[in-house]
Amino acid sequence: MTLMLEEIHQQPQAFARAVEQESAKVFVLAEAIRARQIRQVVIAARGTSDHAATYAKYLIEIYCGVPVSLAAPSVYTLYSTKVDLSGCLVIGISQSGQALDVVQTLHSAQEAGALTACITNVQDSALTKVSDFALYCTAGEELAVAATKTYTTSLMLVALLVAHWSGSSTLLEGLKQLPEQASRVLSVAKTIETVVERYRYIQECAVLARGLNQATALEAALKMTETSYLMAKAYSMADFLHGPIAIVSEGFPCFLYAPDGHAYASMVELAQKLQTRGAEMVIFARSPEILELATRPITIPVEVPESLSPILYILPGQLWANYLSVARGQNPDRPRGLTKVTLTR
Amino acid sequence: MTLMLEEIHQQPQAFARAVEQESAKVFVLAEAIRARQIRQVVIAARGTSDHAATYAKYLIEIYCGVPVSLAAPSVYTLYSTKVDLSGCLVIGISQSGQALDVVQTLHSAQEAGALTACITNVQDSALTKVSDFALYCTAGEELAVAATKTYTTSLMLVALLVAHWSGSSTLLEGLKQLPEQASRVLSVAKTIETVVERYRYIQECAVLARGLNQATALEAALKMTETSYLMAKAYSMADFLHGPIAIVSEGFPCFLYAPDGHAYASMVELAQKLQTRGAEMVIFARSPEILELATRPITIPVEVPESLSPILYILPGQLWANYLSVARGQNPDRPRGLTKVTLTR
Repeated sequence: MTLMLEEIHQQPQAFARAVEQESAKVFVLAEAIRARQIRQVVIAARGTSDHAATYAKYLIEIYCGVPVSLAAPSVYTLYSTKVDLSGCLVIGISQSGQALDVVQTLHSAQEAGALTACITNVQDSALTKVSDFALYCTAGEELAVAATKTYTTSLMLVALLVAHWSGSSTLLEGLKQLPEQASRVLSVAKTIETVVERYRYIQECAVLARGLNQATALEAALKMTETSYLMAKAYSMADFLHGPIAIVSEGFPCFLYAPDGHAYASMVELAQKLQTRGAEMVIFARSPEILELATRPITIPVEVPESLSPILYILPGQLWANYLSVARGQNPDRPRGLTKVTLTR
Repeated sequence: MTLMLEEIHQQPQAFARAVEQESAKVFVLAEAIRARQIRQVVIAARGTSDHAATYAKYLIEIYCGVPVSLAAPSVYTLYSTKVDLSGCLVIGISQSGQALDVVQTLHSAQEAGALTACITNVQDSALTKVSDFALYCTAGEELAVAATKTYTTSLMLVALLVAHWSGSSTLLEGLKQLPEQASRVLSVAKTIETVVERYRYIQECAVLARGLNQATALEAALKMTETSYLMAKAYSMADFLHGPIAIVSEGFPCFLYAPDGHAYASMVELAQKLQTRGAEMVIFARSPEILELATRPITIPVEVPESLSPILYILPGQLWANYLSVARGQNPDRPRGLTKVTLTR
């Protein structure tokens, strides 16, 4: 068993632990946010953590009605800009807590009088030092280079924060179900191990979702690129129709993440368009209607609020990346030329 | 000659016209922004226009010190969220003025009491009706499906707005030079027509830049995907090192946009890393140091402030997409399955 696969299967427990250990701190942070009447959020992150930031943007805007900006860290580092962040909530996400550009963005924010918080898996890092509140993934050390459990637990913490900030019972109740639901979703591992065989030789593919699961498409594509060295590109369904759909010809592989919810109808429409072009479609969904359009349907056997679905729907994407890499004779634990911590300035 | 190539060559004149015809209006908008003490900007756009929005984000943050959020239109459309946009400047960018989700975002913004503006190439559209200020590309009708002159003139208008808002003489003076400099940059057409031959059969590639030219990488990748049906994926240099660099093996084609400026040193560092992996590199730059690392160097014969370089550095990217498409026996004017206007809700 690869380290990556081991860590994938640790997620249900990690989910339960994150909620248990971090809820009290998240509650206090949510109170601070309300007390300071935060009307603007900026999030700094890189790589996988940037996909957690994408999820946070959607969830905060939808539940709290506050506009969220994803920081371009180079604005703060390369260009030494003084952006006016006073009055903002600035969140840094970095599993190692060492991403230098994220640390520098938080440092600037703190100097400007912003409320700062971080989400990280490592205690007492450079990032926690510049954060008023440090939320921990409590995922245990992550040994595989490809991040899995630190990604999903970051999403858990985001959802927990938004739940307390907005007071949404959908989120609060839904979060409690996730550890058990995650176990059920992971039972698709056997199916995926078999289905990836067909994709042993793909060189490129598109990964598609819409709305809240944009983060899922981005992260699933990155996992495949890192571990299987194939050109996997994520698109929001809406942007895809604006041009890139031109690449889709007979047999072009497309991965669709289509949980139930507001984005579902658009995804059905997209699947129909792709079918007329003869695309090869792997579809991750619960509803039979869209699964029937798939070349290879992957049934996700849980009912989950769309707002929390990105936490569960990435699990089959992680399994897919792991098994496809193995099927291609590669080692998902040791992607060539990657190290666990990337220090960019 | 393709329509796309004709329109590429119309850009120097279009640049001069945009500045001449729109300066007075931009000046008034800049005054309104200052009068309302705008401390937050939200931009809504899709596809190519979203790359203009990316440029706007960097330029506004760097020159005006105001955080900019790129709207996820589905937050406003799919999820019917009421984001608190009062006190914001909300800018919609759409060449046709018909992108329904962009229109709806601006409509919500106007109802919330935001200051609204749009950048478009079509007068009296749905988008202009929900905008307090409408800035026109004045690029003339764009006939090719792949947007070229409407993209660069949108960038011109963004730069013009930031120049007046910030009072930057670098921008104001630099903008005056662009029409003549654009003509000089377009003189690389012959070189590019020859060099693309070598890339007749590529299936995938990475397009890399950093900082302000992130927009250039995104747009150059999209143009190749649309017109040559190849999997071109853009990365910021910093994100690329966080994982996706794993795909680069001997001969993997990488396109680097590396104008002089703050991002230049990082791009040299990246080119060196890619060289040790045996990557095939096409580099667009002025400075000899990085061009010497290229498999095929494309010399851009102008000195331009980094802040305006995205307006000129995309020109060889457009030429590349056009000539590569032709070399592959395709028609860049008629990408399969695309129409000029995409109506997403």
